[in-house]
Amino acid sequence: MRQYPRTLNKLINELGKLPGIGSKTAQRLAFHILSLTDREADELAEAISAAKKSLKYCEVCGNLTDRERCPICEDSARDGSVICVVESPQDVMAMERIREYRGRYHVLHGTISPMDGIGPNDINLVSLVRRLQAEPDVKELILATNPNIEGEATAMYIANLLKDTGIKITRIAHGLPIGGDLEYADEETLLKAIEGRREL
Amino acid sequence: MRQYPRTLNKLINELGKLPGIGSKTAQRLAFHILSLTDREADELAEAISAAKKSLKYCEVCGNLTDRERCPICEDSARDGSVICVVESPQDVMAMERIREYRGRYHVLHGTISPMDGIGPNDINLVSLVRRLQAEPDVKELILATNPNIEGEATAMYIANLLKDTGIKITRIAHGLPIGGDLEYADEETLLKAIEGRREL
Repeated sequence: MRQYPRTLNKLINELGKLPGIGSKTAQRLAFHILSLTDREADELAEAISAAKKSLKYCEVCGNLTDRERCPICEDSARDGSVICVVESPQDVMAMERIREYRGRYHVLHGTISPMDGIGPNDINLVSLVRRLQAEPDVKELILATNPNIEGEATAMYIANLLKDTGIKITRIAHGLPIGGDLEYADEETLLKAIEGRREL
Repeated sequence: MRQYPRTLNKLINELGKLPGIGSKTAQRLAFHILSLTDREADELAEAISAAKKSLKYCEVCGNLTDRERCPICEDSARDGSVICVVESPQDVMAMERIREYRGRYHVLHGTISPMDGIGPNDINLVSLVRRLQAEPDVKELILATNPNIEGEATAMYIANLLKDTGIKITRIAHGLPIGGDLEYADEETLLKAIEGRREL
């Protein structure tokens, strides 16, 4: 069987390494890239290199930034007495989209997951402990890891680790999503919704 | 709302321009690219630039190549008396995969589609006519455009255009796909299957 020219095979191969991109999609994307102008293709290539080279993690909270500290840590208007602990920079963005939270963040870059061999020292947790020692103004730590096994276990671990610090440690609420349907809710969610019921 | 760092937004934006990549997928791909090593990200970026820069169309048949002529046109073992006319370089690859066809190709880079304002002069057709004049050995032209309205119309147009050249002009067969199910075949396909029946 004849192959595509070498450079095209290489491009298809590289695109196929991306998550969720199978060989058919990689081919389709590659042919699309060939149909771009030189300038458009270069912009895509440069965006990849530039993003990879310029982005790093905030030295304070671990959020993505192109400077030493992220814009949230640099913003003196943000409330330094509350830190919201999340798993990823994407989660920071999700929190920011609700435009309600005015505190700061700490990004773990993962969760404790013994099954995958990821322990407490493999996530951005030591820096949280150090940060709490360096920032005595912190009054509350909101644990906003994902509501799944690893996220819950990580939240419990952190809560336990910091229980003697005097800092108030809270967990985001679990329950029925807004717009959700009781009939179709899974039992676990419904149980959490009942347990977390509040007086009106 | 706070945005991602500028270079990350730029990457998400560039990835989102690719076909079939929505903003959520673009974000996911962007974060995946950030998780690559510098070397891996550079390889992806370079593959895009290199493919775009090195690839061009074969001066004879219009197939993709990184030289003046594609490997098939350069291969003297291929049968020069048959030319298979296809819509795209991907179709060349599809034909090559069956390992049966030993003739040459001509890639139209599209189909005649008056609805989209694409006429006979907007596809790689003039070069086919010139090629047939320059290659008197061609005995058969297999029209292998896709079995849809534009592909059929383009095949009819070419057949009509070349009907006085003395070259045998054939169309690939339409019918039920192997492994297909009569019960679920659309009427058009079934009609073609009946029309194209052959004596056993």
